[in-house]
Amino acid sequence: MLDENIPQLKSMSIDELNALCDELRNKIVDTVMKNGGHLSSNLGMVELTVALHYVFDFPKDKVIYDVGHQCYTHKLLTGRAGKFDTLRKYGGISGFPKREESVYDCYNTGHSGTSISAALGFAKARDIKGEDYNVIAVIGDGSFSNGLVYEAFNSVSEFNSPVLIILNDNQMSISPTIGSMHEYLEKLSAESEQRDKKRRHETIFERFGLTYDGVYDGNDLGCMIQKLSEVKQKLRTRSVILHVLTKKGKGYLFSEENPQETHGISAGSATATEYSTVLGSTLSDIAAQDERIVAVTAAMTPSLGLSDFFEKYPARSIDVGICESHAAVVCAALAVQGLRPYFAVYSTFLQRAFDEVMVDICSQNAPVTLCIDRAGISGSDGETHQGAFDLSYLSMIPHLTIAVPKDVVEFKRMLLASPDFNAPLAIRYPKDGFRRFDGGSFEFGKWEVMRDGGDCVLIACGERMISIALSAARIAADDGVECCVINARFVKPLDEVMLSALPHKHVITMEDNSLIGGFGSLVDCFYAGSGKKIKNFAYPDEFIPHGGVNTLIAKYGITVKNISDYIIENAHR
Amino acid sequence: MLDENIPQLKSMSIDELNALCDELRNKIVDTVMKNGGHLSSNLGMVELTVALHYVFDFPKDKVIYDVGHQCYTHKLLTGRAGKFDTLRKYGGISGFPKREESVYDCYNTGHSGTSISAALGFAKARDIKGEDYNVIAVIGDGSFSNGLVYEAFNSVSEFNSPVLIILNDNQMSISPTIGSMHEYLEKLSAESEQRDKKRRHETIFERFGLTYDGVYDGNDLGCMIQKLSEVKQKLRTRSVILHVLTKKGKGYLFSEENPQETHGISAGSATATEYSTVLGSTLSDIAAQDERIVAVTAAMTPSLGLSDFFEKYPARSIDVGICESHAAVVCAALAVQGLRPYFAVYSTFLQRAFDEVMVDICSQNAPVTLCIDRAGISGSDGETHQGAFDLSYLSMIPHLTIAVPKDVVEFKRMLLASPDFNAPLAIRYPKDGFRRFDGGSFEFGKWEVMRDGGDCVLIACGERMISIALSAARIAADDGVECCVINARFVKPLDEVMLSALPHKHVITMEDNSLIGGFGSLVDCFYAGSGKKIKNFAYPDEFIPHGGVNTLIAKYGITVKNISDYIIENAHR
Repeated sequence: MLDENIPQLKSMSIDELNALCDELRNKIVDTVMKNGGHLSSNLGMVELTVALHYVFDFPKDKVIYDVGHQCYTHKLLTGRAGKFDTLRKYGGISGFPKREESVYDCYNTGHSGTSISAALGFAKARDIKGEDYNVIAVIGDGSFSNGLVYEAFNSVSEFNSPVLIILNDNQMSISPTIGSMHEYLEKLSAESEQRDKKRRHETIFERFGLTYDGVYDGNDLGCMIQKLSEVKQKLRTRSVILHVLTKKGKGYLFSEENPQETHGISAGSATATEYSTVLGSTLSDIAAQDERIVAVTAAMTPSLGLSDFFEKYPARSIDVGICESHAAVVCAALAVQGLRPYFAVYSTFLQRAFDEVMVDICSQNAPVTLCIDRAGISGSDGETHQGAFDLSYLSMIPHLTIAVPKDVVEFKRMLLASPDFNAPLAIRYPKDGFRRFDGGSFEFGKWEVMRDGGDCVLIACGERMISIALSAARIAADDGVECCVINARFVKPLDEVMLSALPHKHVITMEDNSLIGGFGSLVDCFYAGSGKKIKNFAYPDEFIPHGGVNTLIAKYGITVKNISDYIIENAHR
Repeated sequence: MLDENIPQLKSMSIDELNALCDELRNKIVDTVMKNGGHLSSNLGMVELTVALHYVFDFPKDKVIYDVGHQCYTHKLLTGRAGKFDTLRKYGGISGFPKREESVYDCYNTGHSGTSISAALGFAKARDIKGEDYNVIAVIGDGSFSNGLVYEAFNSVSEFNSPVLIILNDNQMSISPTIGSMHEYLEKLSAESEQRDKKRRHETIFERFGLTYDGVYDGNDLGCMIQKLSEVKQKLRTRSVILHVLTKKGKGYLFSEENPQETHGISAGSATATEYSTVLGSTLSDIAAQDERIVAVTAAMTPSLGLSDFFEKYPARSIDVGICESHAAVVCAALAVQGLRPYFAVYSTFLQRAFDEVMVDICSQNAPVTLCIDRAGISGSDGETHQGAFDLSYLSMIPHLTIAVPKDVVEFKRMLLASPDFNAPLAIRYPKDGFRRFDGGSFEFGKWEVMRDGGDCVLIACGERMISIALSAARIAADDGVECCVINARFVKPLDEVMLSALPHKHVITMEDNSLIGGFGSLVDCFYAGSGKKIKNFAYPDEFIPHGGVNTLIAKYGITVKNISDYIIENAHR
């Protein structure tokens, strides 16, 4: 049934629909095992999504998937089955909802907790325009710890524009869900098993003006169709929250038993990255000697490499759930009180704590270390997950030192030195970490000359760029052009002593970040008016789509060939 | 009693303490009427603060004031009465808690909702270090709509480190408090009047593992001392939320009756600024013709000039409370559905929605207009309220156009043109708006030559800078140096056509923003390698303290004299 046509669900029997669910599940497993992607959350969502499409009228009705990584069934049902094998590949279909891709994707998501706010916006727009359609937010219990959800709840009565919120409760975010709201949801589930579903005491949701209806088995297609049909009637007059239990990884035994391991599957491998591993082991080593060390995460402990640390030092481990802002404030307070917190977080998600990093951490000069993982292009998750902006949004913050190790060896050195660094520190590193460079000494604030050369200078940030720079320099040398290559392991402050002393007329900067506000722009400002000839290799002013890391870096012209060509052409001018 | 010594509260009788409260209240009114500042919130907090100091042992115990503008009594009681007349003046004491100022200020605040997260961090640090003290967060009901508060609540059980949260419920944020949580608090207060305080049904707070105790009259000193003494005992083993009602403006009749007008008092005047007024009237005019216009605020409707709009167009007006992230997502959704939302917000508070502006608004290319008030230096509120970073954190975001009007006339033109601008747009403007410049035509993306001159070019952003640039150019002309002055009314995209055509060797940029990532850095990047001599006038890489706007701008060297001197010295080199 799954091809580029949209299956005519509404005319199918329950048996046919259940057969369709099997087909969907197989397609998802096959594709994710090949292309990587989100497995267990999508397997849990098959019946619920089919039921939504059976009961509601898309694209007239609108459904917004929170975070969005659970949208595979939705995509397969809306004309994208034929090209589903391009999932997450460059130029192929995205692993997240994309308005650019289909009229059935009405709102792009990627970061946690936005779906209810967006649903309220849709419903308000509908009412202002006097239109008539249903608006549905589908949100997992992991996102439920995020403050945006509460801000939206607090608005429901005021907006007075009915929406349906489906709470997809699988008792997991990427790691098991954290916090009192999670315990509360468990309690609601437990109560529902013991008593009549109709009458229980007022839920927290009813306090916010929502009609609460639950708890239902989201993997039972018949049940879901019936329940959604009932709820659809209520939506004429009021907002409803429907509490649904689904099984993460449903229908695929390995995934059911290992939902955490199969949340995100990279093509080929699901192991922790090298940088993450080094973070975890080094921080554990430091913590054994230094009682001030505290590790803080926002629902990503295993993929950040910190599971062992959390097991060894539970009293000094804090996972706040998907609450980056809260995590940053907690870190600031810990640091103000003399501890040394390490907030490990993906580059793209740290954007959520931009204000708190500035106000709470940096304006107080609190010695928090931000361990920024998946910095630079991170690949197949696309626009909302690339880490191509952190050098820009961090370098503008006073008091913050920004380090970019050239490899995991240098990363470890930075970590070992960090407890004595008495100010806010950010260390950013990419997903991959397989390169090793010869390296001499390490000193805070000092860059490192990796190769001498008098014709031009390549100043490069991070292992991907240094690797390209060294290769380009070797090719240029074959052409008689001698390039100096510098490891700019501190983006802020710049090593102004070295910059001032550089004799080269031609300066080339290279970074795994957007040009605007990034490393290159800092060098441009430093050399403004100096008469130097400067060329910046960095990402242009656009959102970077999904695709392979190397494909994308090459798309933006940062290749050995382009750079060696540029050097050979310009260095002697 | 109030001088540079710390009054010995614990040995005073209730009568003496009440007399002290009168003295404190008089001191606050006198000072705020002279220096400007937050009046009504501080008047409401006098007894509660005195009771805290009577019962707890500061600085051993720690108190964190949410937002922090209600800390005047705290400052007066902790050795700062003698210099309280320097409140909010450059070099004087801050209107917010400052660790740099006193050991009694344990954590700096300024933005909403951080106090509970910070208190949990303090309590965790205490328990990790095996220390023994109490941690108290004092938070107003206005902040209670903020998502951070919920994220912190959700952590209370997990942290398992007792804190006291005092909910100072005066039924007002800057405008009356918004949302279901507010209604819920009202309900709790009403219930408490009807029944025995001890037994009522489980509150929302108890669901989060807090012991709820309330509702008490926070302006009754004896009652507060007794209640806090009781609560102090409970804190040995559990976290408590104490719900206290206070009267905003208490003891000063005009303020009691007009708490909204007396929330913030500028020295001299409390009227809306000119830009705000123009925003409100223009948006109302546009909305009369264009049914797509929606105004969105986050608890600041009057000071943003939108009270009339909200009255005229209630169905197209949304105040979400202090929830900038939520507001940004709602705007994105409204825009995606064909409406034209205008999100009016202070520059410093928009930092809270950085991720949502990037992901929800800009990556979807949603035509939302951000009306960014109090941009540039905003004066006496200090570090956490200066708007000196928005050009930096916005210019790095793809798809976003950033406009900076040269005066309110141009601001109005920009607003009139904005409904037809089919992409995200930010317009930033300062607090003051009293200048008028002759101006020709206006076109999106095009700069304007304000004055011709061949010796050098001054490219200036916004009315403060253009005013200084024109004066400097006139002085330079008297010395025989002819300067071109350009109104760079679009920071992004730069007017590259004009930049490419400029014949001047000497280029000077001027902006009311930090240099890093700001306007000057964009020009530096554009001209990198061009051989132009460039000088950037902008704010350095530091947090800008409180003080008068002109005092601060001069402190950073952006004066007519400095610039004319620079021009005269350099233009002919």
